Amino acid sequence: MKINNSYFYTIREDAKEEESKSGNLLVRSGMIRKNSAGIYMYLPLGFKVLKNIENIIRKHMNKADSTEVLMPALVAEDYYVRSGRKEAFGNSVFTLKDRFDKPYVLGPTHEELFLIAASYGAQSHKDLPFNLYQFQNKFRDEARPRFGLIRVREFIMKDAYSFDKDLDGLDVSYQKMFDAYKNCFDEMGIDYKIITADTGMMGGILSEEFQAIADIGEDTLVLCDNCDYATNVEITPLTNEQEEDKDSKLEYEEVYTPNCKTIEDVGEFLKQDMHKLVKALMFNADGKLCICFVPGEREVNITKLGKILGAKEIELATEEEILENSNSVPGFTGPIGLDVKEGVKIVVDENILKLRNFVVGANKKDYHYINANIDNFKYDYKADICLVKEGDNCPDCNGKLHFKKGIEIGNTFKLGAKYAESYDVKYLDQNNELKPIVMGSYGIGPGRCMVSIIEQNSDDKGIIWPYSIAPFKVAIVVIDTKNEKQMDLGTKLYEDFEKANIDVILDDRNERAGVKFNDMELIGIPVRITVGRKAEENIVELKYRNESEVTEINEKDAIQIIEDKYCDSKL
Amino acid sequence: MKINNSYFYTIREDAKEEESKSGNLLVRSGMIRKNSAGIYMYLPLGFKVLKNIENIIRKHMNKADSTEVLMPALVAEDYYVRSGRKEAFGNSVFTLKDRFDKPYVLGPTHEELFLIAASYGAQSHKDLPFNLYQFQNKFRDEARPRFGLIRVREFIMKDAYSFDKDLDGLDVSYQKMFDAYKNCFDEMGIDYKIITADTGMMGGILSEEFQAIADIGEDTLVLCDNCDYATNVEITPLTNEQEEDKDSKLEYEEVYTPNCKTIEDVGEFLKQDMHKLVKALMFNADGKLCICFVPGEREVNITKLGKILGAKEIELATEEEILENSNSVPGFTGPIGLDVKEGVKIVVDENILKLRNFVVGANKKDYHYINANIDNFKYDYKADICLVKEGDNCPDCNGKLHFKKGIEIGNTFKLGAKYAESYDVKYLDQNNELKPIVMGSYGIGPGRCMVSIIEQNSDDKGIIWPYSIAPFKVAIVVIDTKNEKQMDLGTKLYEDFEKANIDVILDDRNERAGVKFNDMELIGIPVRITVGRKAEENIVELKYRNESEVTEINEKDAIQIIEDKYCDSKL
Repeated sequence: MKINNSYFYTIREDAKEEESKSGNLLVRSGMIRKNSAGIYMYLPLGFKVLKNIENIIRKHMNKADSTEVLMPALVAEDYYVRSGRKEAFGNSVFTLKDRFDKPYVLGPTHEELFLIAASYGAQSHKDLPFNLYQFQNKFRDEARPRFGLIRVREFIMKDAYSFDKDLDGLDVSYQKMFDAYKNCFDEMGIDYKIITADTGMMGGILSEEFQAIADIGEDTLVLCDNCDYATNVEITPLTNEQEEDKDSKLEYEEVYTPNCKTIEDVGEFLKQDMHKLVKALMFNADGKLCICFVPGEREVNITKLGKILGAKEIELATEEEILENSNSVPGFTGPIGLDVKEGVKIVVDENILKLRNFVVGANKKDYHYINANIDNFKYDYKADICLVKEGDNCPDCNGKLHFKKGIEIGNTFKLGAKYAESYDVKYLDQNNELKPIVMGSYGIGPGRCMVSIIEQNSDDKGIIWPYSIAPFKVAIVVIDTKNEKQMDLGTKLYEDFEKANIDVILDDRNERAGVKFNDMELIGIPVRITVGRKAEENIVELKYRNESEVTEINEKDAIQIIEDKYCDSKL
Repeated sequence: MKINNSYFYTIREDAKEEESKSGNLLVRSGMIRKNSAGIYMYLPLGFKVLKNIENIIRKHMNKADSTEVLMPALVAEDYYVRSGRKEAFGNSVFTLKDRFDKPYVLGPTHEELFLIAASYGAQSHKDLPFNLYQFQNKFRDEARPRFGLIRVREFIMKDAYSFDKDLDGLDVSYQKMFDAYKNCFDEMGIDYKIITADTGMMGGILSEEFQAIADIGEDTLVLCDNCDYATNVEITPLTNEQEEDKDSKLEYEEVYTPNCKTIEDVGEFLKQDMHKLVKALMFNADGKLCICFVPGEREVNITKLGKILGAKEIELATEEEILENSNSVPGFTGPIGLDVKEGVKIVVDENILKLRNFVVGANKKDYHYINANIDNFKYDYKADICLVKEGDNCPDCNGKLHFKKGIEIGNTFKLGAKYAESYDVKYLDQNNELKPIVMGSYGIGPGRCMVSIIEQNSDDKGIIWPYSIAPFKVAIVVIDTKNEKQMDLGTKLYEDFEKANIDVILDDRNERAGVKFNDMELIGIPVRITVGRKAEENIVELKYRNESEVTEINEKDAIQIIEDKYCDSKL
């Protein structure tokens, strides 16, 4: 691309609307642009990056014997009703009606349609296994779109689906995809972890996530400092071995606790360890109040709680909701004497069962009970509902847990036969018996890969693309475009690179050198060749984006030097 | 692809739901499958065909200096309100609301967003011209989806947009796209005509359509047998030189016309030429009744009528609508003594102005007036509202018009500055004055190209793909898959073709030869190589899909023979 005759722009100022480094750099470099909340345009440079990422994924999908197809985005609602997922998706799916009032959804993920497609091709055991994939636009009505391309409402997903005769077959197909995914992300140069996660609204047997390590990641990865343990914090069990108190149970007693604004204040005032203070956390779970009691130093794990309650959407309850549904006094809620309306659930963390003579709120301003015990009150559920913390015990070994933040760039699900059962999609096995098809589901978000690469590869000047991903591999900057010798050499080099099939951008704008250098650094081109005063001697400057050194080379050697350096990672 | 380990199926029976030859063949060959009315899945073979078509288009777009981008499908309604097109699209656009009740549309075409994108890159005259394109899913809520991939509700469109300083610039950009389109369709081997058409809801200065010739085409192309005249019948003016009658006007007179069920019956009964019988045709135009009077042998051109009335949707009126809004008696409606409700419009074709002493309905069962004249009644508009017929005069020469049916596979619009004006998108010209950007818009429907190719290239056995479009170029059929020699040779040839980068399918199913031949013919693979009994002598059979001859060749020569034959059209 020659900039002078092309659509090209960059922005000097930070993009105010973008809260993330990557979002800011993508917008400033003219690669993407926000259109509505969570809805973006891919402009020429961003589109090229997207395609480079897609092509890496496509290569590894094809190698793994997956076949590309394309499903519609507009899907009759019936398909999701039948699988039971219309309800599971809740508000997060876009719905609409056609001119005849027939309801549709914008597909948030395509298990249902792929299963239908599979049913056409799989009559008999001889037709299985196979694997189909697509790159296709997905739509999700996110409540809080944010972080540039991370949490968006319309996005391209590579989704693949495997179809097998049985669970043994699924294991093989799953491993093939799992390996392909590792190869994809390795080739993109992303620093990532693979963790076990909640199956969520996909359901099924196993869910693993490929998480790019990044501070802005929305997922908390729980890793062990001693073994390979790796899970999403959503599902990490709390396994600290807390011994059962041996104290004999005392009678509970109301005490005055003035001026205690936090649980820590209460602990200090009563000279009690935090774990002997039981605190209340209140949630709105699918519209109903739920009151949880956990040790003072713990927080509630929403995912664990959701599973116990069978609830889809859980948010912190408002003070209004609490007061309307219970006699509790916010800040002093406790299980003893707690009076709640019908439908309100009380959940007690199982660690509390081991405590003796603990402290709870007295449902009365500035009062607590001391010496409370589990048999002093009623509850609906007891379960592990706590979030683990750094330093907690590893569930698998003697190690300690630590956290990292991750961006979910891929996921793999062993779904089993549940979808085929709901759709009655069966094949004839060797014994002429009808068996449901066993399914796996595998997703990659190319936009999130783009974001992750930038979060992991940038400096104060801009993006530092890996060679395989960069929109252009080489930028040729002509210092003085009015100098004929310089322009001729720049143009000659440009044509040489094009002939060698190396994506090249020629900065032939009549601008100051600084402006051009800044732009090429902002958009993150791996190699810069500067054509300046030594053009007459056929000498140009070579600089790599991720190194500071500038070397002079003969223009004739340029292609060879670059091919030598990037040979392996060349697309 | 080796069929034995892949997703592959064909259907022997006709697809009942598909009214078109191409729709039937696409479904039977397992290339596409209907999901809902006008919504299709592209399955593996169909997807490959789609990509081959897209890649031809992409090549010519890039050659014409257009740059690829990607816009979202979900577009805030505001964008279309501002351009005035929300209303123009009417019911044909899908609308929805997000969880915050904000209205969106599924983009039916993207002039608005591309203009916004252009505004980022075009500050000054130095930034212009440029051209951007995308392959992207479009959505239209068609009232009557039909003919397989022809009239669909979700479809991929290649849409391009040019941005220029002025109309002279637009002429250059337009011609570049126009030429690129010709190159695309030529390379696909489509038999097409380019015609002038109505600008419709796009607006602007000029619209031309690329129409593939096909009996199922929904458009009527009007061509001259003597010159290059070519238009869509929607806009063809009726220019038959009908001389003004010289007869002196008589007094009109009611006559009894019993048992006349058609206008022809009336003509015979009264011994009058059809052109002296004026018939009434009634329409519902955006909800309001419109009564048109045209010569007896003519029909009304809805597009012409819509422009006169400024109406978006015009349909034939129901009897109920007619009776509710006028005193007319269906079958005997005439302009004399016609009494209509407020808002009903009466339109008279201009040919009637030249008539003297004609026949009209008397608004009374079994009665007509003879000797009616234009000054006997009132009307709201007089205009050319007739459809031309074959044999009518060419508007440009002495030739006669004839018709062909066409599938609109591409269109090009000179839009001018109207969009930039509604959005106030301007650039600084050489004199530092703000000028609106001048726009062109260019669409191709890859799915319609696919359909057109099949409509033009098939026989009773199935599809006959051109080499450049075929999902596989070569099919290798192994007759006896249990014969080791045959399987080895088939597999060797398969690998040879793969190495030579020739897309190849190996039919290694344990099926009768006839089944395999039928399938390869149905899916339309250009070259079939049969590995049978002479495998031991390294002799295989070669047959082209569009020829009946079978020749024996040495397997070693296979690649060379095919490369020689298809060298020019190789992708």
